Amino acid sequence: MAGNSFGQLFRITTFGESHGGAVGAVLDGCPPGLEITEEEIQKELDRRKPGQSKITTPRKEADRIKILSGYFEGKTTGTPILMIAYNKEFESDDYLELKEAYRPSHADFTYEAKYGFRDWRGSGRASARETLARVAAGAIAKKYLKEKLHIEFISYVDQVGNIQADIDYNAVTANDVESNIIRCPDQKAAKKMIELIEKVKAEGDSVGGVIQGVIRNVPAGLGEPVFDKIPADLAKAMMSINAVKGFEIGTGFRGVALRGSEHNDPFHIKGGRIRTKTNNAGGTYGGITSGETIHFRVAFKPVSTIKREQKTVNRKKEEITLSAAGRHDPCVLPRAVPIVDAMGALVIMDHYLRHRAQNS
Amino acid sequence: MAGNSFGQLFRITTFGESHGGAVGAVLDGCPPGLEITEEEIQKELDRRKPGQSKITTPRKEADRIKILSGYFEGKTTGTPILMIAYNKEFESDDYLELKEAYRPSHADFTYEAKYGFRDWRGSGRASARETLARVAAGAIAKKYLKEKLHIEFISYVDQVGNIQADIDYNAVTANDVESNIIRCPDQKAAKKMIELIEKVKAEGDSVGGVIQGVIRNVPAGLGEPVFDKIPADLAKAMMSINAVKGFEIGTGFRGVALRGSEHNDPFHIKGGRIRTKTNNAGGTYGGITSGETIHFRVAFKPVSTIKREQKTVNRKKEEITLSAAGRHDPCVLPRAVPIVDAMGALVIMDHYLRHRAQNS
Amino acid sequence: MAGNSFGQLFRITTFGESHGGAVGAVLDGCPPGLEITEEEIQKELDRRKPGQSKITTPRKEADRIKILSGYFEGKTTGTPILMIAYNKEFESDDYLELKEAYRPSHADFTYEAKYGFRDWRGSGRASARETLARVAAGAIAKKYLKEKLHIEFISYVDQVGNIQADIDYNAVTANDVESNIIRCPDQKAAKKMIELIEKVKAEGDSVGGVIQGVIRNVPAGLGEPVFDKIPADLAKAMMSINAVKGFEIGTGFRGVALRGSEHNDPFHIKGGRIRTKTNNAGGTYGGITSGETIHFRVAFKPVSTIKREQKTVNRKKEEITLSAAGRHDPCVLPRAVPIVDAMGALVIMDHYLRHRAQNS
Amino acid sequence: MAGNSFGQLFRITTFGESHGGAVGAVLDGCPPGLEITEEEIQKELDRRKPGQSKITTPRKEADRIKILSGYFEGKTTGTPILMIAYNKEFESDDYLELKEAYRPSHADFTYEAKYGFRDWRGSGRASARETLARVAAGAIAKKYLKEKLHIEFISYVDQVGNIQADIDYNAVTANDVESNIIRCPDQKAAKKMIELIEKVKAEGDSVGGVIQGVIRNVPAGLGEPVFDKIPADLAKAMMSINAVKGFEIGTGFRGVALRGSEHNDPFHIKGGRIRTKTNNAGGTYGGITSGETIHFRVAFKPVSTIKREQKTVNRKKEEITLSAAGRHDPCVLPRAVPIVDAMGALVIMDHYLRHRAQNS
Repeated sequence: MAGNSFGQLFRITTFGESHGGAVGAVLDGCPPGLEITEEEIQKELDRRKPGQSKITTPRKEADRIKILSGYFEGKTTGTPILMIAYNKEFESDDYLELKEAYRPSHADFTYEAKYGFRDWRGSGRASARETLARVAAGAIAKKYLKEKLHIEFISYVDQVGNIQADIDYNAVTANDVESNIIRCPDQKAAKKMIELIEKVKAEGDSVGGVIQGVIRNVPAGLGEPVFDKIPADLAKAMMSINAVKGFEIGTGFRGVALRGSEHNDPFHIKGGRIRTKTNNAGGTYGGITSGETIHFRVAFKPVSTIKREQKTVNRKKEEITLSAAGRHDPCVLPRAVPIVDAMGALVIMDHYLRHRAQNS
Repeated sequence: MAGNSFGQLFRITTFGESHGGAVGAVLDGCPPGLEITEEEIQKELDRRKPGQSKITTPRKEADRIKILSGYFEGKTTGTPILMIAYNKEFESDDYLELKEAYRPSHADFTYEAKYGFRDWRGSGRASARETLARVAAGAIAKKYLKEKLHIEFISYVDQVGNIQADIDYNAVTANDVESNIIRCPDQKAAKKMIELIEKVKAEGDSVGGVIQGVIRNVPAGLGEPVFDKIPADLAKAMMSINAVKGFEIGTGFRGVALRGSEHNDPFHIKGGRIRTKTNNAGGTYGGITSGETIHFRVAFKPVSTIKREQKTVNRKKEEITLSAAGRHDPCVLPRAVPIVDAMGALVIMDHYLRHRAQNS
Repeated sequence: MAGNSFGQLFRITTFGESHGGAVGAVLDGCPPGLEITEEEIQKELDRRKPGQSKITTPRKEADRIKILSGYFEGKTTGTPILMIAYNKEFESDDYLELKEAYRPSHADFTYEAKYGFRDWRGSGRASARETLARVAAGAIAKKYLKEKLHIEFISYVDQVGNIQADIDYNAVTANDVESNIIRCPDQKAAKKMIELIEKVKAEGDSVGGVIQGVIRNVPAGLGEPVFDKIPADLAKAMMSINAVKGFEIGTGFRGVALRGSEHNDPFHIKGGRIRTKTNNAGGTYGGITSGETIHFRVAFKPVSTIKREQKTVNRKKEEITLSAAGRHDPCVLPRAVPIVDAMGALVIMDHYLRHRAQNS
Repeated sequence: MAGNSFGQLFRITTFGESHGGAVGAVLDGCPPGLEITEEEIQKELDRRKPGQSKITTPRKEADRIKILSGYFEGKTTGTPILMIAYNKEFESDDYLELKEAYRPSHADFTYEAKYGFRDWRGSGRASARETLARVAAGAIAKKYLKEKLHIEFISYVDQVGNIQADIDYNAVTANDVESNIIRCPDQKAAKKMIELIEKVKAEGDSVGGVIQGVIRNVPAGLGEPVFDKIPADLAKAMMSINAVKGFEIGTGFRGVALRGSEHNDPFHIKGGRIRTKTNNAGGTYGGITSGETIHFRVAFKPVSTIKREQKTVNRKKEEITLSAAGRHDPCVLPRAVPIVDAMGALVIMDHYLRHRAQNS
């Protein structure tokens, strides 16, 4: 229990089901005096919201965030910040057929195994709608880190299905990411990805992909070994996002085939500073940041909700046939980009505060 | 700071540097009344210890564990368990050349960036010697979970360099894993892996690989969404192990290329119970265990310490040339198998206790 | 930072300022399946609300609680429960004179010392309005503990100013407590207390007092030495309430004058069970419950807000004269009784869940 | 479970039973670079050790502390510090009569109720010997806070039995406290206290008392409302010490009889700074430090172990008669003074680090 908080010093606790009264987060530990507006937060949320393009679900959700505490005269006060988005009214009847069914690869069955019963409207607490709370809190962290340290979070879509983009993560800008609806800065690959998603959608199916995470300008020295290492906390953050099945930092799974002499990143002097010639590690050694760019990849499985008919069972142990009635994303990747950024920002912000505690 | 504890209710705090007085762990939250001996714990430690075969470092370490508290008349008492392994006397002079150097892809530079200075003997706190404390605590968790729930932890080496084993994770036994010195149940692949490691060693180099983690008989209903999901906590646990660069559960990175209709695991009735036909998810939905086997993969980079000459810099910002004098593992995989098992056991044990809190 | 959560497994995070958008709590870790209504929670809140009698502030506040998540078909779902009470619209101008002033014994000065600036409307985050969130969460804990274990929380006013009631804590019922507006079951003392409060109010002054806490039917064996002892966690819980300056359990400060031979509680057999003849300890030994009634006392200072003129300074370091314009409680004791009950319930509930984790 | 840690950022986890292998602590989160020696820590431990005067137990214990990790070249390294004191060999037979007995007001019964069985040698984990680990960690915090901020911890004995000292807490020095064996700076009262303790000892009995805690030079702005307020965390810290039954800060229980107009501390300008004329609050408002001296009182019950015969029961539910055979303290107050200092230092240190995280 009590698994709904993330972070030690910059700590969010999220709440809400897809069809309850509201979703949102309490953010405890935000430094006082940060100037930020609801509009700035909303901007990040709009990158995540449904219905933003032809390749995302046309479902409409009320993703409008309100700040109800911890905020005064345009600034954070240092006290807990409640950010809330009310859910729209809806007809429960739309979901009646899900009341008894265990949808394949959804959390219906496991939530019942754990809690004895479940809020069966939409996906209840297991709905990805919860991630809007993360994006809202992440927007605050991003602003703080940008102002204090010029840290940048630039994630993008690197792969959809079998289509792999060819991108230099060092060169990508925020504008590049927003230059197309799939959020892939390789325009050729982006075009193919969009075509694939449209095809998959037409087939009533779904497809997965990989998001590349990039974090620039992180100072050397962040991270708390031996457990709260930066790669460990990033991995936890990313693996807690709906549909994520894998995380790798630096060369990751590809790096295992290299020799140590190839994989090691030699130090040299550049611009008077100690830098590494290569960055196979992905920006950390021993779990502590090196000052080089943090880069990692996050694997998203194909969305579980599909229109095609599937066989499965219900709570009465009857075998049934199911096909999704509602409107769903054929591919979550473009909407997941701001979530990856947000979770990255929560991790780095928390570690930056922990670092200050120790070294001031 | 304070990043040296892992777990909420079954909580270890490890301590110790490679060449300080001792390494070990305090385990707080172990249920009382578990019968266990130092010998049972030692058995797991012996799987991790250096010098166990021709493909591990011939370095000798004092890995003998002592229990100094929380233990009475052969049983755990429910109070904190101190497990300690004293370090052998050694000559600091052996490490003098490391005092100033920043070894490539080691944590020398980042520890200094973080802490201002470092214990330069061996790798100090960044040494993998710390993991013996994890294995000791994991041995207690494994015994408890085996007795209470028949849970089994059966990790093995799945890949070394480019050599990929071909193994049915459902069929592997603990004896299969121990049947060769590389701990790979595919005997043909094992032979090639050993040859590769010997070759790499002869070249003064190192090589990476992948460990497959397998956890059987976990009951449905463990896991604490939305952050403390089982895959998220496993990812953090594994990514906190030295040299780990990637984690994937179920189909992981390979699964992104599949369609939802291929990837989804349909439920059916088997033996009167609700089961899934496939297990692409790797044993969880929505972060909660399904009752199916948990299976995941952990990527280890090639060891950073190599005999071959490397260029790098020292703390005076001088460019230097370095080659490892000591005795080191050309490949950590065989010794890392019990560490993966132990971290898995710590995660499942913690979640089992959290589950009991809620559902008794 | 991040000091706005209480509890390990049954964990509340409160938010809200007296004149921001809302106050409330997220409760994470509530077991699923508890039947409870907003009305049952409201009942406890009504015991705390202002304006309930002639001796409390006539100020009107919107203390109406709403549950917006973690709740479905009349039951808790096991996911985070958001309870929220919206603040009424108000005129900021009412508080303009407080904008610059540091009121004596208020938190105006210290909040600015800590956060750099403060929400000066009402008392901002330091307002006792925050405690309504605790009472709401406590109502859930009380209901659960009553249903599962028949545990009762029966606090009452034991002293106001110099007027000390004469009450057998073992005999008091919930009805006794509610039998008068001061919530003191000794009717004679209650009459005197009410007279004193009216006199103090007429003088534009305030007065303090002591609440006796009583918790019955707690099973033996709760508590987590050596730090999370029941008396330690109760002390923290009570000392975190606004205006509390002291806590004692059992004989407390009076007991120091006794000899060990007088103070010790001998065990004997009663009704076939091991009981203690006396209960000077107040229901715990070594920080663990004995099965006897937990009894403790909580000291509340006189309210800082008074109508009488006071000298003080403002943020410009000017000496000023101040007298409270608004409507305030001359004595918080009657309204604080449900807060003491609630904090007691949060402590016992958390320890009960921790106990189940270990002993199931 | 897992109740053996204290602090968020400066975090100790203690371990050990009175007659197991060792007692000690792991301290995680100590800033790197603090120069300190085992001898400096030992000095504080010697103030706590048994046998230091005619009014403490003549029992000899091995209280010699060793640092085995997190320490290099005379300085803390920022990694976990293991401090350990090995227990002396002893004859278990000395305690055989305690194996079955439930000593009055001891934790024998409650530990068995909680854990099912117990280490019955000495008082096992419930022994006050555990507090040496707290004093060792506190010594590190004291040194750090003294060097960084000139903070002083000057506790002393204020009351023994009915004998109340008359002391101005603002004037007391560390030397004053050490000027007599009872650690009471009022020499007249000290003489009477010593006589009382000797009388009580001769009678085979014990007596309680009160320690006054004083913390000077704490900067304004420490404390984390609404739960982790300084008085709340101090209360928890003190109430977790063996034999403590009460805590009050500032005027505490006496203050409840005052009017607000008497109790309030008006601000004024002194030496160009904002100060309070009185300090009835004890150094905090709204749970945050004001910059004035923190002063509080801690009530210790008479020690439970007495030589006089007492009736009680054993685990077989037989009524038995018991008298303590060993050597025990007739009054713990003089030895508890360094424990109160240490716990105060742990609280302030932790809050200082939390403050730095937020405000750097």
